[in-house]
Amino acid sequence: GADAVVVAIPIGAIRAVFAGIRPALPTRTLVTDVGSVKGVVVAAARAMLGAHLPYMVPGHPIAGAEHSGVESSSAQLFAGQRVILTPLPETMRNATERAQAMWESAGAEVEVMEADRHDELLAATSHLPHVLACALVNAVTRVGGPEALLRYTAGGFGDLTRIASSSPALWHDIFLANRERLFAALASFQAEIESLREAIARGDGEALLASLWDAKTVRDALAERRSRGLGTSPPRP
Amino acid sequence: GADAVVVAIPIGAIRAVFAGIRPALPTRTLVTDVGSVKGVVVAAARAMLGAHLPYMVPGHPIAGAEHSGVESSSAQLFAGQRVILTPLPETMRNATERAQAMWESAGAEVEVMEADRHDELLAATSHLPHVLACALVNAVTRVGGPEALLRYTAGGFGDLTRIASSSPALWHDIFLANRERLFAALASFQAEIESLREAIARGDGEALLASLWDAKTVRDALAERRSRGLGTSPPRP
Repeated sequence: GADAVVVAIPIGAIRAVFAGIRPALPTRTLVTDVGSVKGVVVAAARAMLGAHLPYMVPGHPIAGAEHSGVESSSAQLFAGQRVILTPLPETMRNATERAQAMWESAGAEVEVMEADRHDELLAATSHLPHVLACALVNAVTRVGGPEALLRYTAGGFGDLTRIASSSPALWHDIFLANRERLFAALASFQAEIESLREAIARGDGEALLASLWDAKTVRDALAERRSRGLGTSPPRP
Repeated sequence: GADAVVVAIPIGAIRAVFAGIRPALPTRTLVTDVGSVKGVVVAAARAMLGAHLPYMVPGHPIAGAEHSGVESSSAQLFAGQRVILTPLPETMRNATERAQAMWESAGAEVEVMEADRHDELLAATSHLPHVLACALVNAVTRVGGPEALLRYTAGGFGDLTRIASSSPALWHDIFLANRERLFAALASFQAEIESLREAIARGDGEALLASLWDAKTVRDALAERRSRGLGTSPPRP
């Protein structure tokens, strides 16, 4: 008699879980999830949830921590954070509204978009950073040994690589599920790196400073909005 | 009549500052600096400080913040943090000891090494991360616009790119001064990225998980040591 089922598991297992819960789902029970890639969730729902699609609302809370397990839970985790819902064409409006109300009751700010657009954006804002953090930790270990990383890094490095402490199983699934979007984001990143590298190689201080200022300007704006809480909504009149 | 002069400026200006202070230096005044690249400081000292080299102790505190200016100062900034000193062959032992005592009085833990080794290690642990943070901010802005970065990133992204808010002038100088070491570190990083990308492309879950676990293991060790204060010294019996 559940009103809603929230599937919160590494997305590699989502198809099997949908198949498993399908026989026990009451007709109008809302089904939603928290997976970081929405294309595969939509595909799994189509394949496994059959006539239940009108009550399926894929979702993704953009908040979390590098810790796993129920002992890491926090009642405030979603307060002031953004949640993206990506309803299917078959999804009933009422189901999307119920999912939205559920997240809002946890203090989240809900936004609806297409699954494809979600996967493109999050490839850049979340999946790419994770690849970089892992590659950075492994590269520094290779250059100077693990001791170098422990002795000669400052707080900035700890911040920068914090997400590399997240669950490998979770990210393994995300990388494989969103690989095409991830590779596109990685290509943009590589182009930026190459342009910085070339500016440094030819001693082009002007181009180098312009890139550094571009990054600082956007990053300062992010810090400013964060300092005002979420603050990412347009101001209300 | 100063006992010590601490030169704390973007390293692109260090040669001019050494030249400027040289005429006013009393014979035994300790000269040290806080630059992030030591090779150029050694070269500038050789070129500009002449007979004062026995009192010159290049130094680098591995601590800081993304803010600049005297209004961002903190008396606790160096407490429990590491400082690397890279004395020249000409430097008197007594001068190095004075520099060490100065830093220890601010709570820092001092380590002495060759300037070249410092530049190699810090290229990986500090300069490379900075390049990546800037390139990431610029790449995400290019993929989704500044609004995407502001709306669809979580706390991990903010942490990861915090250093991109640092002074562009400072980092412009660092990148140019340590470019060869930086390019070597960048090549190691690119090799890691390529190996991750290939594992994802061919769906090699085993190789992907191994990389993610390697990174998590080292990063967890870093978090563990940080949580015990600096804690990077071997335990004393």
